[in-house]
Amino acid sequence: MAAALPANLRISPAQPSDVPLILTFIRKLAEYERLSHEVVADEAVLRESLFAPNPAAEVLLAHLGSQPVGFAVYFRNFSTFLGRPGIYLEDLFVEPEHRGRGIGLALLAAIARIAQERGCLRLNWAVLEWNQTAIDFYRKIGAVLLDDWRICRLSGEALDRLAEGKIAELA
Amino acid sequence: MAAALPANLRISPAQPSDVPLILTFIRKLAEYERLSHEVVADEAVLRESLFAPNPAAEVLLAHLGSQPVGFAVYFRNFSTFLGRPGIYLEDLFVEPEHRGRGIGLALLAAIARIAQERGCLRLNWAVLEWNQTAIDFYRKIGAVLLDDWRICRLSGEALDRLAEGKIAELA
Repeated sequence: MAAALPANLRISPAQPSDVPLILTFIRKLAEYERLSHEVVADEAVLRESLFAPNPAAEVLLAHLGSQPVGFAVYFRNFSTFLGRPGIYLEDLFVEPEHRGRGIGLALLAAIARIAQERGCLRLNWAVLEWNQTAIDFYRKIGAVLLDDWRICRLSGEALDRLAEGKIAELA
Repeated sequence: MAAALPANLRISPAQPSDVPLILTFIRKLAEYERLSHEVVADEAVLRESLFAPNPAAEVLLAHLGSQPVGFAVYFRNFSTFLGRPGIYLEDLFVEPEHRGRGIGLALLAAIARIAQERGCLRLNWAVLEWNQTAIDFYRKIGAVLLDDWRICRLSGEALDRLAEGKIAELA
């Protein structure tokens, strides 16, 4: 597969003019993950989050020549056990017709280099437990699955209740 | 339990002089999680990560009077589906002898307020799947467990290999 890494592959940071493309990739990834109903992002909030001062995340784009074929979204996280920041990979996506050519791996490698440049010792991300193709790929590059951890989420009314101090009924 | 919320409970942002205390809490939490072997943080790296410009994470401390009894560590994350930043809760710990008094809930409520102030729509964290006490507590306040996601981690030599582009043997 590495021998087939396309010669015209280019990986570069996204620019503000790429916001429509980024949103397209977010929607395609959500569709693949069967989570399209969760996508509420629009171009305005993405532009604000990604390209205002102190952006919440960064985006790499993969192009073959002038054709966009994939993206990765990442941000800095932090491990108390290490005492240091790390990198969290929020999204990684390659167009289905361009998979199996090493493009996803090249995006991951670019992020690994960014992690090292920034003194980060860990790269973390989440994978759907039914996505065996992805899990096999991640294991092949040396990733470990933290099988005994579960992700929790608080949002919507539950977050409002907690913020408003309506905790008497909860305790 | 809410009726017993201690009157002298105070929750406030940590200061640089609190680094030794923060490290103590990190170690106590790791011991509770049976992960003490993973703690390599020391005071110097914590001071750099938490109190240099553009800190990687923030810390809240809970005191009863002048006695420190718990802490929470959090940082900004990002959801592509929302297009917005959120808050990730990295650590939450209350000294065992002070549990059951609403202190952990008060720390969570303080972070929920910070999330709202900053326009964050989600609070995420991870829980060990054997920690049923914690899971029950989180469900009670309205959190959902994302049971179909697994956390992946790449670090050490595997991260180096990827960063150095030694991907031929992987692909």
